[in-house]
Amino acid sequence: MTFHATVLTLYPEMFPGHLGYSLSGKAMERGDWSLEAVQIRDFAKDKHRTVDDTPAGGGAGMVLKPDILAQAIDSLAQDSRPRLLMSPRGKPLTQERVRELAVGEGVVIVCGRFEGVDQRVIDGRQLEEVSIGDYILSGGEPAALTVLDAVVRILPGVMGNALSGTHESFETGLLEHPHYTRPQEFEGVAIPSVLTSGNHAAIDKWRHEQALALTKARRPDLLKQDAQPVTK
Amino acid sequence: MTFHATVLTLYPEMFPGHLGYSLSGKAMERGDWSLEAVQIRDFAKDKHRTVDDTPAGGGAGMVLKPDILAQAIDSLAQDSRPRLLMSPRGKPLTQERVRELAVGEGVVIVCGRFEGVDQRVIDGRQLEEVSIGDYILSGGEPAALTVLDAVVRILPGVMGNALSGTHESFETGLLEHPHYTRPQEFEGVAIPSVLTSGNHAAIDKWRHEQALALTKARRPDLLKQDAQPVTK
Repeated sequence: MTFHATVLTLYPEMFPGHLGYSLSGKAMERGDWSLEAVQIRDFAKDKHRTVDDTPAGGGAGMVLKPDILAQAIDSLAQDSRPRLLMSPRGKPLTQERVRELAVGEGVVIVCGRFEGVDQRVIDGRQLEEVSIGDYILSGGEPAALTVLDAVVRILPGVMGNALSGTHESFETGLLEHPHYTRPQEFEGVAIPSVLTSGNHAAIDKWRHEQALALTKARRPDLLKQDAQPVTK
Repeated sequence: MTFHATVLTLYPEMFPGHLGYSLSGKAMERGDWSLEAVQIRDFAKDKHRTVDDTPAGGGAGMVLKPDILAQAIDSLAQDSRPRLLMSPRGKPLTQERVRELAVGEGVVIVCGRFEGVDQRVIDGRQLEEVSIGDYILSGGEPAALTVLDAVVRILPGVMGNALSGTHESFETGLLEHPHYTRPQEFEGVAIPSVLTSGNHAAIDKWRHEQALALTKARRPDLLKQDAQPVTK
């Protein structure tokens, strides 16, 4: 089964963007996943191809019309793929949600632009509002590309065995320990001696302590969420 | 003064990516900002152009060598631009940090790949580790493009007056209220009558209540962080 992503956007030319290169690009060429960008404007009904209108109640910006977006969504195959709406109002994306998406048959992603999207189409088409972080983007497109990068990366076969056995941030509940590689000395600073000791138990212990200390210092919120002891 | 972004990457072909279109692309054409992607591999010293090596202490993945990355960083003009390293271990990006970056002269962004970056170059070159969210990407490139989108969007002139007077998520400390536009009725659901009442005080009150209720339901963490009352 191939993971199939459909993106509804006013800027289909932004896709596949960075996903067309490196591992995700090669995986796309192999057919491990596919990406289709649908122009919402193609579903406009007037000769000016209008997709937005002024907000009811007044205010700045423009709102994506519910009828046009609904038609664009309804034009897709009616399958069970989750339908995301990228929005700073959404539930923050987590690695857990990324993993759930990656084991599914694909995803439909609606990219908002302008001030927002009419609430009635969000409700009527059961769009799942997802946020990639607490900052404002020019539209949903950079967010959609980011979500897809995270998902495609863990699809079977995409990274080969590059992932196996890695202790990544969030996969263990802790931020990752520091890394070192050759040269042995860089600008007067040596690699911590424990790492070149050959004592694997001591190395594991050191890395866990470093990860824990880093998480405590930078992201105490992660420790509060999940108080269970983290081991390999 | 033009905002100048320099990205250090193993995939310069991923840039400007989606930033080459729409408002950010037009702003780039006008010279409101500029983007340069520097190939880290050009600073490798051997004929294989090696940039990474196995992690000290063992484990999966490869680590970006400190000496090569330091040379790439040192090749840039020595100015006061902040140097970010995109990393899931970093401090979560906020709209406040985006605003700080946007009023500066630019930014240098280092994109990690492989397992990570040698800690000694992070320390030695004062790289500020920044995370765009709690999920894992294929590398720093999608994150760098996301940060730049957020920053470029609020550079003077980029969005014209499209931003003026908007009540955006995070700018007020609350998630944004729902939006509605024509048609008046969509699939049997009317626009909330308050929004078409012409009573601006009632509209403002309704929007604030909706924003508060949405934030309580979806992101109570935002309310805890900043308990001061939020008004227009």
